[in-house]
Amino acid sequence: MKKGFLQAKLKSARIARLATVDEKGRPHLVPICFVHDGRTFYTAVDVKPKRVAPEKLARVRHIRANPKVALLIDDYQEDWSRLWFILIRGTARLLPRGKEQKKARRLLRKKYRQYRAGMLPEEAPVIRIRPTHTIWWGNP
Amino acid sequence: MKKGFLQAKLKSARIARLATVDEKGRPHLVPICFVHDGRTFYTAVDVKPKRVAPEKLARVRHIRANPKVALLIDDYQEDWSRLWFILIRGTARLLPRGKEQKKARRLLRKKYRQYRAGMLPEEAPVIRIRPTHTIWWGNP
Repeated sequence: MKKGFLQAKLKSARIARLATVDEKGRPHLVPICFVHDGRTFYTAVDVKPKRVAPEKLARVRHIRANPKVALLIDDYQEDWSRLWFILIRGTARLLPRGKEQKKARRLLRKKYRQYRAGMLPEEAPVIRIRPTHTIWWGNP
Repeated sequence: MKKGFLQAKLKSARIARLATVDEKGRPHLVPICFVHDGRTFYTAVDVKPKRVAPEKLARVRHIRANPKVALLIDDYQEDWSRLWFILIRGTARLLPRGKEQKKARRLLRKKYRQYRAGMLPEEAPVIRIRPTHTIWWGNP
């Protein structure tokens, strides 16, 4: 995978999968919308319907107990010679209200028209993911 | 999500993401091809190029140390009102050579023409995932 391809995908991919680990050492997985500012990833607990309050969401609870997360970006296609993936391992944190949270919200709204159309309220919690390792695979 | 939709997706989805947990309690993620026989999931360590021998692959090492895994099936679309996902949590095991491994290989070849075309050799290790919890979300 060429570095240009990698960087382009980190910017343009519409979805990633976020893995967290629960209190009992079991993995948990959820699809997320995200934005990458060149170094850091941000994802919001947005207004897609949830069954529970944000602070009770599994991903939020888990990263409080264990901030280690993994993020996977890939794109399935039937021509397996063109498959690729990017695996980011890092540390997640629920951002407090403030400047960085505002910046993340601005970037998320810039990337997703759905967020500009009201799906990202001011009070939406934002999770920051700081990469520690990035692995990529494939020759797309 | 209706039960018929759920069952259809478990059968027809071409890809899932598999989360495992490493020795240090950090999550790991990889896209996988899989088959579901109505109860159990199977995935093979196939011949898509790997950097290391199968038994050294992260997912194989991890499930030996901690068999708890998560499997996510979803399908991104820009109309967020139609988003859905299925999260399966369960226990994984690398199958020994034998009847169940043969059955899994047969099912995988039936589902993926790529496997019928030589991408699943006889000696390919097969991982079995027995679900303990299945959660679904969305109104597709």
